[in-house]
Amino acid sequence: MSSLIERALAGQPVPRPPVWFMRQAGRYMKEYRELRAKVSFLKLCGDADLACQVTLQPVERFRVDAAIVFSDILPVLEAIGREIRFDKGHGPRVLEPVRSASDAASLRRPDVADALPVVPETIRRFRSARPQTPILGFAGAPFTLLCYLVQGSGSRNWEHVKALLWSEPTTADHILSLLADVVGDYLQSQIDAGAVAVQIFDTWAGILSPEDWRRWSLPYVQRALGRCSGAPRIYYTKDSAPYLDHLTQTGADAISIDWRVDIAQARQVFGPTIPVQGNLDPVALFAPPDEIRRRVRRIIQAAGPRGHVFNLGHGVLPTTPIEGVEAMIDEVHQTRWPET
Amino acid sequence: MSSLIERALAGQPVPRPPVWFMRQAGRYMKEYRELRAKVSFLKLCGDADLACQVTLQPVERFRVDAAIVFSDILPVLEAIGREIRFDKGHGPRVLEPVRSASDAASLRRPDVADALPVVPETIRRFRSARPQTPILGFAGAPFTLLCYLVQGSGSRNWEHVKALLWSEPTTADHILSLLADVVGDYLQSQIDAGAVAVQIFDTWAGILSPEDWRRWSLPYVQRALGRCSGAPRIYYTKDSAPYLDHLTQTGADAISIDWRVDIAQARQVFGPTIPVQGNLDPVALFAPPDEIRRRVRRIIQAAGPRGHVFNLGHGVLPTTPIEGVEAMIDEVHQTRWPET
Repeated sequence: MSSLIERALAGQPVPRPPVWFMRQAGRYMKEYRELRAKVSFLKLCGDADLACQVTLQPVERFRVDAAIVFSDILPVLEAIGREIRFDKGHGPRVLEPVRSASDAASLRRPDVADALPVVPETIRRFRSARPQTPILGFAGAPFTLLCYLVQGSGSRNWEHVKALLWSEPTTADHILSLLADVVGDYLQSQIDAGAVAVQIFDTWAGILSPEDWRRWSLPYVQRALGRCSGAPRIYYTKDSAPYLDHLTQTGADAISIDWRVDIAQARQVFGPTIPVQGNLDPVALFAPPDEIRRRVRRIIQAAGPRGHVFNLGHGVLPTTPIEGVEAMIDEVHQTRWPET
Repeated sequence: MSSLIERALAGQPVPRPPVWFMRQAGRYMKEYRELRAKVSFLKLCGDADLACQVTLQPVERFRVDAAIVFSDILPVLEAIGREIRFDKGHGPRVLEPVRSASDAASLRRPDVADALPVVPETIRRFRSARPQTPILGFAGAPFTLLCYLVQGSGSRNWEHVKALLWSEPTTADHILSLLADVVGDYLQSQIDAGAVAVQIFDTWAGILSPEDWRRWSLPYVQRALGRCSGAPRIYYTKDSAPYLDHLTQTGADAISIDWRVDIAQARQVFGPTIPVQGNLDPVALFAPPDEIRRRVRRIIQAAGPRGHVFNLGHGVLPTTPIEGVEAMIDEVHQTRWPET
């Protein structure tokens, strides 16, 4: 019998929803902080053995119903020819941002198997170590990767990115096409390595107007997803409400929503055949356990018995109290749908 | 005959939409930077004569169709008993954040005429100086003010705010009630001083789930707006899409939307009697002038001939090229609706 998450993503009956959560292997866990005290983030992402250890941490501690391979979205930018720096106390930085046609001409189209071997290898190791626990793969969405590539770092307003879209649309389309192809092949390599599903993170799509999202994000998500098959493909954007009516046009098999949308409304908009993942506010984990449990129950009831994967609406925060995480997971685990 | 903006906010026929924009008096203008080189931000906000000068700057330079009184949303927090610091290079800071019932007990209920005299006085001076130019008043919304009061500064996740809502709801309700009363009276004092309309800025409402917005923002906007009358009252939130179906429940006479919602859809949801303000992406002003003009025209056409006030979807950025602002305003000014 296949795992809970596979059944939920197939819309099949489940006794309760499966639960995993974004950034479940991360700084909020003591085990992770201890390892990071000895090893840099880049080293963790670049070593399949260490990445596999970190991937296992939340599985062992919380009995989440799926692992997600430990990595970052930015190795794809290294694969197309840009060096990334993670400086202490700052976010990631692209050393030479791409802001013109001539900058873009220096990007390369890599062979994904050669350029991005660590994540598939981590997935294979995890599957040997834990054959009973399903593991998810992931990648950044083309538009979100473009944001970092052009801006060069995290940003409040991403002015350089939008300036490129609107001043040099041909260059932007060229880079997005390249990113979409690499992302699609990368996700396929993770499915081939044994991922039971893959998630495409469009974290920064939410800076776009609906018109701009349809022009600059949607076609490249379609293009990336069109290059991979064999496992459910989940689309996530941190701001779901502005694009709610259009999210199923991505071609994704399931949609992961943030907390600024009612999950019952999302299900109604997406229709009965599209499973939904989400949608607890990550900051709710700072609330008292009873309040967390109430919110978990509310989401599960609103989502209904089929096609729901419980998750946060965005990554867990590094300062999250571990008791909050435990209350959330326990409440999901205690759920029992009547047999159907 | 009343001004363009008064007619637009009354849903009356206009030859073209009026235009003003959030933070139109600010750092992107050389005139403003020159004054700020000599005078601190707090000094500007605390002196009606200087505030009036700054309020006039975009009116004189761009012939915008309305001024908005130069101030900040945080003086209300000083009025209820908390000191604010604007340190160079940082955002505002509340010296003693309010995070418990005992912290809240030290807040005071001020007489608004005594505690907040500068903004009404600035409006009166502006009206003497420029009797032909309409001026708007404003205040922060109760929930947005609570965010700063509890967190103590700007924040990505506002953990302390949400922790208070969910751990000590009675305390949160108590503070929000106080803020709503002060905000309502403050807006009334601005209307009495001659503001043709007032806007309530709920900048941080967008961190809330729809359920939490209905619980923690909506009732206190209603309460504040219920205390003022005599001029149109506009509600603005930086994330409109998550709450779109509920925004008219605020009781506001007009709704100001961000750029992550289609203005035609917003008008359909709000109904024909609610004027809409917005909704150009502020970063669009970094695009080439032709692209800015295309976007301005698209918004004006989608909004339709009545009940639209042209604006950005959020405040203009300090690094905005002045040519972008000029292109936007000129395109609005060139619009001509056929007579109806």
